[in-house]
Amino acid sequence: MTDVVIIGGGGVVGQKLARALVARGSLKGAPVGRITLADIVQPAPVEGTEGVVCDITDPGSVAAAIPDGTDVIYHLAAVVSAHAEAEFDEGWAINLGGTRNVLDRARALGTAPVLVFTSSIAVYGGAAADPLGDHSYPNPQTSYGAQKAIGEIMVNDWSRKGFVDGRAVRLPTISVRPGRPNRAASGFMSSILREPLNGQVAVCPVGRDYLHYYLSPRKCVENLIRVAEIPAETLGVNRVLQMPGRRWSIGDLVDALEAVAGPEAVRLIRWEDDPDLRRILDGWRHDIHADRAEALGLEADASFEENVRYYIEDDRPAP
Amino acid sequence: MTDVVIIGGGGVVGQKLARALVARGSLKGAPVGRITLADIVQPAPVEGTEGVVCDITDPGSVAAAIPDGTDVIYHLAAVVSAHAEAEFDEGWAINLGGTRNVLDRARALGTAPVLVFTSSIAVYGGAAADPLGDHSYPNPQTSYGAQKAIGEIMVNDWSRKGFVDGRAVRLPTISVRPGRPNRAASGFMSSILREPLNGQVAVCPVGRDYLHYYLSPRKCVENLIRVAEIPAETLGVNRVLQMPGRRWSIGDLVDALEAVAGPEAVRLIRWEDDPDLRRILDGWRHDIHADRAEALGLEADASFEENVRYYIEDDRPAP
Repeated sequence: MTDVVIIGGGGVVGQKLARALVARGSLKGAPVGRITLADIVQPAPVEGTEGVVCDITDPGSVAAAIPDGTDVIYHLAAVVSAHAEAEFDEGWAINLGGTRNVLDRARALGTAPVLVFTSSIAVYGGAAADPLGDHSYPNPQTSYGAQKAIGEIMVNDWSRKGFVDGRAVRLPTISVRPGRPNRAASGFMSSILREPLNGQVAVCPVGRDYLHYYLSPRKCVENLIRVAEIPAETLGVNRVLQMPGRRWSIGDLVDALEAVAGPEAVRLIRWEDDPDLRRILDGWRHDIHADRAEALGLEADASFEENVRYYIEDDRPAP
Repeated sequence: MTDVVIIGGGGVVGQKLARALVARGSLKGAPVGRITLADIVQPAPVEGTEGVVCDITDPGSVAAAIPDGTDVIYHLAAVVSAHAEAEFDEGWAINLGGTRNVLDRARALGTAPVLVFTSSIAVYGGAAADPLGDHSYPNPQTSYGAQKAIGEIMVNDWSRKGFVDGRAVRLPTISVRPGRPNRAASGFMSSILREPLNGQVAVCPVGRDYLHYYLSPRKCVENLIRVAEIPAETLGVNRVLQMPGRRWSIGDLVDALEAVAGPEAVRLIRWEDDPDLRRILDGWRHDIHADRAEALGLEADASFEENVRYYIEDDRPAP
């Protein structure tokens, strides 16, 4: 039996991962045993799993959430970019301190469990040269990106020492995210699709030309499962992988929306340039490659139409 | 007045830096004011400075060592590679936790002081591709290297936020180091020069072909002073600099010894290959470039003969 803990199990990706693991029924060549979803508030229940409240800044709380015998730990929990930027100390406490507590608890298990840590394309930036990938210099321009880059280095070192069997994957921007609009700078990258698919107006703050690097939630979850199953010896001395995504323009996203949902959906997008936001977005990077992960079987979406269809199939609320 | 604190002021580089600052009398365009040497044990006295005991794992101790009004902080303190490898928790507590405490104290000053952090060529390794330099992917193969790579990222983030005016410099292997032989894997890179210069036998565990990246203590100190004076705007979004060194073979070192001290000195070297040590040393990297730092006025040694002469002038004990 493969016992799994998902730290951040209440979030969008954590919940989908839990349902996918239950549906799949096996992980790393054995039936899935206990699945524990841990989060700062009680996670929404997922059938076949248990939910626990866990404050990852508290080592005792982390120890309670990751029981002895755990085989695979997914560490997805973080405060997001804008939050970590606004609340500097809290960001470091949760995104660095919390990751350290998860690593130390994993080490204390004494069994070198698989630890999958979700990093981010936010590690790229500044003086790092294009094209970007596994072996790019991390010069993040947000504290969130800095904390993720540090988490990667720690996962590598704890793995090198044999304390965990770690894997750090840099997630693309996940779109189409279900749920309510949020105030993340990337929020519109989901809302300009999601809101029109629900008959609602959405604002697009940049033009059709803006390029970014995307992955659907469904493919992200499939990749997170696959990454836990890669043999350790295949990964070698660098446990960090760029998760495959695809670079698309906003125009590509909107065309995909039209192809799947028709011109009336696209008419619900209001184009209102936001120069302040554009200045932030122009610092983001998109010339990203994931050759090694692709060779190991991780996948991007075949088309953005697929992303839109996945949202409709997996997440769109009944009208 | 420029008030200076040197954390790690009891070490070889810290002591030489203190003497150089006293001799120079100015830093950043103003007379040098108070110079405080802080270390885990009372630093050897240096005229014109004050020594304090400081445990960098204790925020209160760090706050006491870095008084209000400090303009420039040198953070040189670390447990070295072999120590951090043997004592995992202690290494992380001192090399990461200690650096965090120094950064937080610097931030608490409220004046964005200059903070010079000594990183190391130990950040290079593993999957990082040659040639190596400021923008190489850090894939360190020791915990010490991991902790230094993380310190660099933190210095960049604290600087980006305006909390400090940080500079992280990756030191080459410092040779000729004065003092007693130590058990560091790199120890022979100084002892095969230092011991013969003092009429004593030294063992060289590798052949003449072994390449490595070196800098003299004297040039290191000159560079540390210069790096504090680089205008912040010149550094831009990446405050990390490879400090210039030179790649030499062991044969080059021995030839320099012979040129300065004659063949009788070289005859004091006993050549005894150590295959276990060689395996460690073969993981170290030497194809290192420091173009940006050189353009900013930092310098390597002109020749290894110079390194040998510096040792004789600066450090050789009277016979």
